[in-house]
Amino acid sequence: MIQGIGASAGVAIGKAFVLPNWEWSLPDTQVNAVDLAKEFERLYEGIRTSKDEIEFIKREFREIVGPEESSIFDAHLAILDDPVFMSEIRGIIERQYKAAEVAVKEAIDHFVAMFDLLDDEYMKERAVDIKDVGNRLLKHLLGAPEVILPSDTQPYILVAKELSPSQLAHLNPAYVLGIVTMMGGKTSHSSIMARALGIPLVAGLENKLENPIQTGDMLVLDGETGAVQLHPDETTVMKFASMRDKQHKKREQLEQLATVEAITKDGVALRLVGNISSVKELNLAQKYGAEGVGLFRTEFLYMDRNTFPTEEEQFEVYKLVAEKVGSSTVVIRTLDIGGDKHLDYFQLPEEQNPFLGYRAIRISLDRKDMFKTQLTAIVRASAYGNVKMMFPMISSVDEVQAAKAMLDEVKEELEQRGIPFNRDMPVGIMIEVPAAVMIADLLAEEVDFFSIGTNDLVQYVLAVDRMNEQIAHMYHPYHPAVLRMIRMTVEAARNAGIDVSVCGEMAADERSLPLWLELGISELSMSPQALLRVKHRALNTVASDARRVAVACFRNRTSSETEEQLGAFSQRSGATLGASGESKEKTS
Amino acid sequence: MIQGIGASAGVAIGKAFVLPNWEWSLPDTQVNAVDLAKEFERLYEGIRTSKDEIEFIKREFREIVGPEESSIFDAHLAILDDPVFMSEIRGIIERQYKAAEVAVKEAIDHFVAMFDLLDDEYMKERAVDIKDVGNRLLKHLLGAPEVILPSDTQPYILVAKELSPSQLAHLNPAYVLGIVTMMGGKTSHSSIMARALGIPLVAGLENKLENPIQTGDMLVLDGETGAVQLHPDETTVMKFASMRDKQHKKREQLEQLATVEAITKDGVALRLVGNISSVKELNLAQKYGAEGVGLFRTEFLYMDRNTFPTEEEQFEVYKLVAEKVGSSTVVIRTLDIGGDKHLDYFQLPEEQNPFLGYRAIRISLDRKDMFKTQLTAIVRASAYGNVKMMFPMISSVDEVQAAKAMLDEVKEELEQRGIPFNRDMPVGIMIEVPAAVMIADLLAEEVDFFSIGTNDLVQYVLAVDRMNEQIAHMYHPYHPAVLRMIRMTVEAARNAGIDVSVCGEMAADERSLPLWLELGISELSMSPQALLRVKHRALNTVASDARRVAVACFRNRTSSETEEQLGAFSQRSGATLGASGESKEKTS
Repeated sequence: MIQGIGASAGVAIGKAFVLPNWEWSLPDTQVNAVDLAKEFERLYEGIRTSKDEIEFIKREFREIVGPEESSIFDAHLAILDDPVFMSEIRGIIERQYKAAEVAVKEAIDHFVAMFDLLDDEYMKERAVDIKDVGNRLLKHLLGAPEVILPSDTQPYILVAKELSPSQLAHLNPAYVLGIVTMMGGKTSHSSIMARALGIPLVAGLENKLENPIQTGDMLVLDGETGAVQLHPDETTVMKFASMRDKQHKKREQLEQLATVEAITKDGVALRLVGNISSVKELNLAQKYGAEGVGLFRTEFLYMDRNTFPTEEEQFEVYKLVAEKVGSSTVVIRTLDIGGDKHLDYFQLPEEQNPFLGYRAIRISLDRKDMFKTQLTAIVRASAYGNVKMMFPMISSVDEVQAAKAMLDEVKEELEQRGIPFNRDMPVGIMIEVPAAVMIADLLAEEVDFFSIGTNDLVQYVLAVDRMNEQIAHMYHPYHPAVLRMIRMTVEAARNAGIDVSVCGEMAADERSLPLWLELGISELSMSPQALLRVKHRALNTVASDARRVAVACFRNRTSSETEEQLGAFSQRSGATLGASGESKEKTS
Repeated sequence: MIQGIGASAGVAIGKAFVLPNWEWSLPDTQVNAVDLAKEFERLYEGIRTSKDEIEFIKREFREIVGPEESSIFDAHLAILDDPVFMSEIRGIIERQYKAAEVAVKEAIDHFVAMFDLLDDEYMKERAVDIKDVGNRLLKHLLGAPEVILPSDTQPYILVAKELSPSQLAHLNPAYVLGIVTMMGGKTSHSSIMARALGIPLVAGLENKLENPIQTGDMLVLDGETGAVQLHPDETTVMKFASMRDKQHKKREQLEQLATVEAITKDGVALRLVGNISSVKELNLAQKYGAEGVGLFRTEFLYMDRNTFPTEEEQFEVYKLVAEKVGSSTVVIRTLDIGGDKHLDYFQLPEEQNPFLGYRAIRISLDRKDMFKTQLTAIVRASAYGNVKMMFPMISSVDEVQAAKAMLDEVKEELEQRGIPFNRDMPVGIMIEVPAAVMIADLLAEEVDFFSIGTNDLVQYVLAVDRMNEQIAHMYHPYHPAVLRMIRMTVEAARNAGIDVSVCGEMAADERSLPLWLELGISELSMSPQALLRVKHRALNTVASDARRVAVACFRNRTSSETEEQLGAFSQRSGATLGASGESKEKTS
């Protein structure tokens, strides 16, 4: 048994297919002067195809993993528009009469060497990106395939040195039983994607194998523990098969919960709703029994475009979602760009600390035309279903008042245009900036509901960027300061008689249930994949017991005490379900 | 009267000296092959001289403006070590037989053009830095002066298109009555420096002058309002002279307050102490009547070096400061690097959001050797004066306990080494992370005092990086959330019976006095330059009136209401003093 890094949970048993490395073979002949134009044409065609392909992968990636992670591909697209890189390639063709693929290869090598020389992390990352994109361009010029697939149609365990997310995107998940990679770890892009796809993955096997795995070798692996066995004996196969079957059975049981009401053993009802970014995700949320949408991130409407979406374009989508949720509700959040989310056609300034910068409502209140277009589209959709509107990143009473004033203008204009809308559409705000918690009593007088965005709130309260690996271990949702802030928010909402729900990742963490039960929060909004897991936990929980645990948690002095107590209670409330098929979302 | 941007307050009357632009004249002769070695020698000599010069300017700048701003020069030093830039220069000399200065000029032009092409803010900033440093190198190779000074020894008003901080650093402030620049604004580095030096400056006059100002022209300017008059008549000169004299008189009166006790009209005593980064600043603080040091930033001990300072080196400085404060106290804060402060010899990872990243106590607890060395030096200094120790960026009970455990280890080792120290040295923490406020009651059980660092606290509570120009207008120290957090902290300290003081920029803002009086905070720590201004305000304030105003402020729903009320009360409590000779510090 070899020990790797368990990067995506689940058991796999099957034959290995080893992904072969493509060997570039570059032509060394000189290009005839009269054929130079042809080489340029080939180059431009290759660039076009590469761009289309990257756009495609980006969209795929976004649908599966979410809009945040997919932004890595924007950097790739930018390189194909980089005048310096491109003029280097053109120069080699033009002056040295070399073939387009040779010019691309030499330009890659030159830039990568130059950027590697500079002792600068930013430059080094650019080098990696240039290598990736350059290889894709090279592949098109050489007519090489992205991945070489196994010749028979049996499901297989994919074995690779490294696996890029674009390679993974090209594979049919139905045929991939599991994945083993020599490099990589839990946070590599392929691992994130494998988790989203529910494919078991063990990474980091380099230097741990006595002999390299060959195509056709029998393998078993456990993506939870990172265990891999090459040429397993029958007993081992039986053992893994039984583990796998148990997991499958659990997943089936879980899927049967979709139509069951989310209610604790002692009768406390919860309302589990979905965080979505697209109509496709709404379908998934409804399949998993979401009782509505607690957070519709509208950013995706603005992405993969060259211009801002028009009022009509937005209206059509909001209307469709409003109609699809039927008698339940959808909370549409206005644009939350900035931070780590950018639009190609809207240049934001380079910022030292984008999370403490120009983002979300701060941009909307500045860019009044853009904001009014979105407000108009949302208000119009309110005529077609139970639409609520929500503003992100609120940190002051002034901001809410300014946003509401614009909303009033929009309503007045619609009135004049004779267009129907719901005059009583509820308006709420995200509580995610510490200032909003501290003045929650003042903000509660201004709005109809709060939605606590725990992801950003935890970041700001603890001053910890959770994407920063150096300090990710300090990102503690169970920090007593966070729990106290959540309680302050709930108390302010209760005193003002307005609704409060949670839409950050804590809502998807079933261990948090006792906290919500004690605080009396009944609406939890989470990624579609988490809905059934949380419901299962709710069905196995006795609310009165859970509240007792929560009371103790609110008294703790450290995060670790709370984490332990909630973990222990969670284990007592029924066995933990396998994580297969679930993805934790990265941001709200 | 021409209207520019008032960038450094104060009135100036005098004759213009127009800073001439130096015209480069480059040799166009080819270098003989046998003389190539000589060219390389000239190049290396030029680089060495440039480096020494930049180091010198950086130190000057730090002494005058503070350690944060001076870090811009680190980027300049890095360029002179950049292998790509340097190999480009060497290549031109070697392969094209050109003189060192020609090679430098061509390399600058090449890199600036290349970086300008890329549509990337980061690259554009690098282009500006390369131009600056390249010109300095060129200057040394050509033997050109940095600034050309007026030939007579009369004080003058300096007129320049642009003024770099290094040019300003070369001038004798005693001869510069005022400055007028065509470019620039309030936040340009020269403006910051002019404010620190107390030189009136009006910027941004480009396109506002009918005729260019000539050397010898008579000028008057008001750096507060931005007004400039060329060839003023006698009445105008008299008016400006009377304004100037009033300001001078006020400054003299202020300086006489150094030995006066800081006490309100109705007898409430305050303790005004200094924020310092060096022994030189301690002298300044004592000159301005500081009753001790509320914040000794130890970062400067770690800067401008190639290695971490040894225990002995640190001990000598801490001991000197402890001895110099005599019967009063010094609060020594442990290393606060990361964020926007870096050390040449300690590579920190590139971070997306450094303010939410790896900094201060987070680094110290990781780098135990480095931290123990500092703790040991501070504890040893406690034998020589009233030393208190303070930890920055605390966000959890665990961190305080971990730091205190290391402190205990250090004390035990000193005990074994037979070295004297104060067993009862008080230990405190900065309250600057929102989490620390929320659990201030728990933290108060662990330490002897709190010091509220308002600069970072405001940034985190509001999620506003105040260095980010795009959102700087949202940085509101008087935001109700901030006031409530300060009150929470004070109440927690009071309940636990420990001391609490304020050391951020709010302490130096005399308008805040009513807040401190109402909260019962008597110790305020600020930059030496602010001490007399705040004391003057305290002497003219009736505490009971101030408290009434503060009570109303704590009830406000918006920052602007509080800002107005505090501003109005401040104006009622005696005329505002001119800002000359004062600098607001940028961070604590």
